[in-house]
Amino acid sequence: MTGLPNYTYRILARDLDFTGRASLMSLCRYIFNTASKDAENNGFGTRELHNNNATWVISRMSFEMYATLREFDEFYINTWVNEISRLMTTRNLLLCDPEGKTLGAAVTQWAMIDVDSRTPMDLRENMNYSKAARFDIPCPINKPVKIIPGKESEPVLERKVVYSDLDFNRHVNSVKYLEWMLDMLPLENIINNGFSRLDMNYLREALYDDRLLLSYQQEDNHHLFDIKRKDETPVCRARIQWE
Amino acid sequence: MTGLPNYTYRILARDLDFTGRASLMSLCRYIFNTASKDAENNGFGTRELHNNNATWVISRMSFEMYATLREFDEFYINTWVNEISRLMTTRNLLLCDPEGKTLGAAVTQWAMIDVDSRTPMDLRENMNYSKAARFDIPCPINKPVKIIPGKESEPVLERKVVYSDLDFNRHVNSVKYLEWMLDMLPLENIINNGFSRLDMNYLREALYDDRLLLSYQQEDNHHLFDIKRKDETPVCRARIQWE
Repeated sequence: MTGLPNYTYRILARDLDFTGRASLMSLCRYIFNTASKDAENNGFGTRELHNNNATWVISRMSFEMYATLREFDEFYINTWVNEISRLMTTRNLLLCDPEGKTLGAAVTQWAMIDVDSRTPMDLRENMNYSKAARFDIPCPINKPVKIIPGKESEPVLERKVVYSDLDFNRHVNSVKYLEWMLDMLPLENIINNGFSRLDMNYLREALYDDRLLLSYQQEDNHHLFDIKRKDETPVCRARIQWE
Repeated sequence: MTGLPNYTYRILARDLDFTGRASLMSLCRYIFNTASKDAENNGFGTRELHNNNATWVISRMSFEMYATLREFDEFYINTWVNEISRLMTTRNLLLCDPEGKTLGAAVTQWAMIDVDSRTPMDLRENMNYSKAARFDIPCPINKPVKIIPGKESEPVLERKVVYSDLDFNRHVNSVKYLEWMLDMLPLENIINNGFSRLDMNYLREALYDDRLLLSYQQEDNHHLFDIKRKDETPVCRARIQWE
């Protein structure tokens, strides 16, 4: 898209699931990698923020795909900061094939937190942030929706947070929740259903050794997922819509 | 190294563990990615093999690191095929910083199997493979050792193979075993002990829904890991040596 940077990638073997398609986790990792790289290129990446004892945490995301990516497929991602309020900023992303055809789109919403207190910081006080924003380019898809858990469902499994779940922010990595959610589903779901749209709500951080309860339920052509601590504190909710 | 291709990389946020260092898993993914890419460049990558209903599976690896990599660190990997027997081939890899200083090294041993029967194929019959080999460049570190499980130890946990464990070969991805092994250790081990050397023995494939028993034991400055099916069939063994 005019004036936006192109971040180019190629699907690697490591991105594939057992069906030979790029997994939803790998596509989300490309989304987050691009967000991180573009923030860095604009002077507000995690390295710069760490000098100020701050970091980015994701609050919500929506993600749609209109095509299937397989090994060796090339694509690029355009990204731009679109909205900035006191405590939240929106970053949009557009996935395109080498000819510029839209393959998918994402909207991500971020907060800046203080590394020690884990409390949100005022985005407009803490950096010269708005100069990078492109208010003129609209949101490519509907913004992330707030997930309302459906009727009470029993936890499918309990999970302890382990070493490999944690990222440099010392909390469970945002892609891990998605991995756990898909792992709960019957395998036929992933084989037979084309992915249409994901909405993620990140509600609390999960830390090392936290005990989490995971559940899901199916309604029409979508699944609702709920991850909470054993004390019922909600941690992450999501909705996956299938074709 | 003279005449060898350079595959260049940069450590990304997604490669870091909670200590801010590139995780052992991420380094192994770079190793496997380079092996895959170099095989592709030489005409015997997985895409070419799939035309022949064949694929590569790893049998053993050894891996040593002499430095710590952190976010934004650049490095390159040199790789070459070094030995070819009827059923096994050795690929060596050397990790270097941009000035050419050795950061780490790996030896990987691979078999080619028939996708349907999962049985090994004769490497010398199945492709014009040896032309890519560099018998003149020696193995950079000691070859992978055969892991002998120590005195009987009780399984620490049982794990069912789930969707996200599987790769395009439809079996548990080779890096997953390492992840499970590190996740079993007390966190202080990973914080306090510098990594020195990994030896992995891949013995059987683990498939979707397989129930696996995981255990480990400590001896001096190394850990021994054992993963087997519930019926006692050995699946993967490893040894991690700390500084």
